[in-house]
Amino acid sequence: MKAELECLPCLVRQAVEEVNISSPDSLLRRKIMRRCFAFMSETDLEKTPPEIAGGIARIISRMTGVEDPYKLIKSAHTKTALKMVPEMDSVISQSDDPFLTGLKLAISGNIIDLGARERVSDADIIRILDEAMSMPLRGVDPGRFKAEIERAGSILYLADNAGETVFDRKFIEQLPGKKITVAVRGAPAINDATLEDARDAGLDRVATLVENGSGIPATVLSDCSPEFREIFENADLIISKGQGNYESLSSSDAAIYFLFKVKCDLVAYHSGFPVGSQVLLKPSDSATDA
Amino acid sequence: MKAELECLPCLVRQAVEEVNISSPDSLLRRKIMRRCFAFMSETDLEKTPPEIAGGIARIISRMTGVEDPYKLIKSAHTKTALKMVPEMDSVISQSDDPFLTGLKLAISGNIIDLGARERVSDADIIRILDEAMSMPLRGVDPGRFKAEIERAGSILYLADNAGETVFDRKFIEQLPGKKITVAVRGAPAINDATLEDARDAGLDRVATLVENGSGIPATVLSDCSPEFREIFENADLIISKGQGNYESLSSSDAAIYFLFKVKCDLVAYHSGFPVGSQVLLKPSDSATDA
Repeated sequence: MKAELECLPCLVRQAVEEVNISSPDSLLRRKIMRRCFAFMSETDLEKTPPEIAGGIARIISRMTGVEDPYKLIKSAHTKTALKMVPEMDSVISQSDDPFLTGLKLAISGNIIDLGARERVSDADIIRILDEAMSMPLRGVDPGRFKAEIERAGSILYLADNAGETVFDRKFIEQLPGKKITVAVRGAPAINDATLEDARDAGLDRVATLVENGSGIPATVLSDCSPEFREIFENADLIISKGQGNYESLSSSDAAIYFLFKVKCDLVAYHSGFPVGSQVLLKPSDSATDA
Repeated sequence: MKAELECLPCLVRQAVEEVNISSPDSLLRRKIMRRCFAFMSETDLEKTPPEIAGGIARIISRMTGVEDPYKLIKSAHTKTALKMVPEMDSVISQSDDPFLTGLKLAISGNIIDLGARERVSDADIIRILDEAMSMPLRGVDPGRFKAEIERAGSILYLADNAGETVFDRKFIEQLPGKKITVAVRGAPAINDATLEDARDAGLDRVATLVENGSGIPATVLSDCSPEFREIFENADLIISKGQGNYESLSSSDAAIYFLFKVKCDLVAYHSGFPVGSQVLLKPSDSATDA
C-alpha cells in the first residue's frame, strides 16, 4: 500500500512524539525535525507509510543516540497486558469457541498501537479491550481461517506491538500441536515488539521466536534478513498482525491472513472496512466473505 | 506565540488540504509537498504558526497558480451565514442584553475555521452555533469590555474567517455610533476574509473596511502595510477575532481584546483555557477576571 498525502500529517505527528520521547533538549528537537523535513522533501513519497516512518526513526535515533525510545512504554504495556492474563484465560475457558475467542483477543490486542494513535493508558487498554471483545469480526470467515491453520505444516506469525504480544500468546495457545514461528522486528521500531519484548510477553514459551532483521515498523521484505525471507517464503501460512504489516504486505501474493484494527481513513479505503473495524482479511484470495 | 513542535503535524495537515483543493494532479501534489517539506526544513520553527502557514501557502499558490483556493468554500460559508441572519436578529432582539448576545454570536462565528479544523459543513455550522450560544464566555468580564468600547474614539476590528464576518456584522450592529474600522487580509490566506469576502458579508454597511496588506492567516505586523500599521497604532481599542490573530498578537502590548474559540492544546496552554472554550481575553492588562 503506497503512502498518500493524507499519511504525511500522521508521519509528522509520529516524528514529533518520537523526538519528544527521545530528547528533552528543545534546540536539538527542532534541529531533528528540520532534518526529518529535509528527509521528507527528498524521499520517495510513494513508498509504504512504514518505510517513510522507518527513515524518520533512523534520523531521530542517530541524532539523539537513543536506540529504543519506547523501551519503557513497551515494558509498561507488556506488564499491563500480563496482568490481564487471568482475565483472558477465564474468557477463553468460558467460551463455546476458544479458537474464535482467542482470535478476537489477538485482534483486540492491536489497540496498543502508538504508530496510529496517541499514547494509550492502562485504563484505556482495559476499557477498549472490553469493547473490542464485544465487537464483530469482519472480513473472512474465521472457520475458513481455522481450517487453513489446521492444514498448514508451518505457520509464520508476524507480531506487531509490545503488549499486544501477550494477546497473541493467548491465541497461539489455542493452536496446540502447530509448529509456529513468531517474527519480531530486528531492531526497535516505535513500540513494535523486539525479541526482548516478545520474551517478556512469554511468547518464547508457545512459539519459536525469530527476528526479521529490519527496524521498520512493518514487514518490508527488501529490508529484512535473508534468513527471515527464507522462513517467509517457506511458510505454508502467514498470520500478520496490525496495520503496519498490512501496509507493507497487502499486495503480496503469499498466503497471508491479516488480523488488525482499521485505524485510519486510508487503510479503511484500501481494505474496504470503516475505521474502528476489527478485520480478518486474506487479499491473496480473490473471493472473501465480506 | 511561538510555534511548538506540536504545531507541525497541524501545519502539514493544512498544507495537504490546501494542495488537494488547489490541484487534482497527483504528481504535482507530491512535488509541492516535497517543496513544502524543504521549506519547513529551512524555516525558523520559532516563528508564529500562521507565519509558517503563510510561507507554505505561498509555495502552494506559486506552484499551482491558484491564488485563492478557498474562494468557493469561503463564498459558501458566507452564504450559509447570511441565511442565518434572520435567526441571529431574532436571538438578539429577544435578548435582555443585546451587547452580550451579539458578542457571543461573534465568538460563535469563529467555529468557521479551516485552519484549525477539518472541513465544516452547513449543518455543522448551524448545530455548533446553537451549542456555542449556550456556552459560557470565559476570560474578561464583558461589562468591562463594553465600558472600554464606549470610551474608545476609534476601534479597529481584526476580522478572521469568511462567513464568521456575518456574525461580526451582527455584533458591530450592537455598537451604534462607534467609529469602527474592520481590517481583512490583504491577500487570500486559507479561508480568512479578504475585502471581497467582507463585502459579501455586508460588513461595508456597518464599518470602514481596510486591507492589512498581508497574505498571512493572522496579523503579523512586520508583514502588514505601513497604512495598516498606522491604523493599528492609532486605534484606541483593538478587537481581534480568532486564533490566528491571537497567535500573532498575543505578546503585543497594544490594547487588544481577543475573541476566539480555543481550538488546540498549545493555545489552550498559552491562554489558560481548555480546548473548546469561548474566550474574551486582554493579555495587555495584568489582572483579568478569569
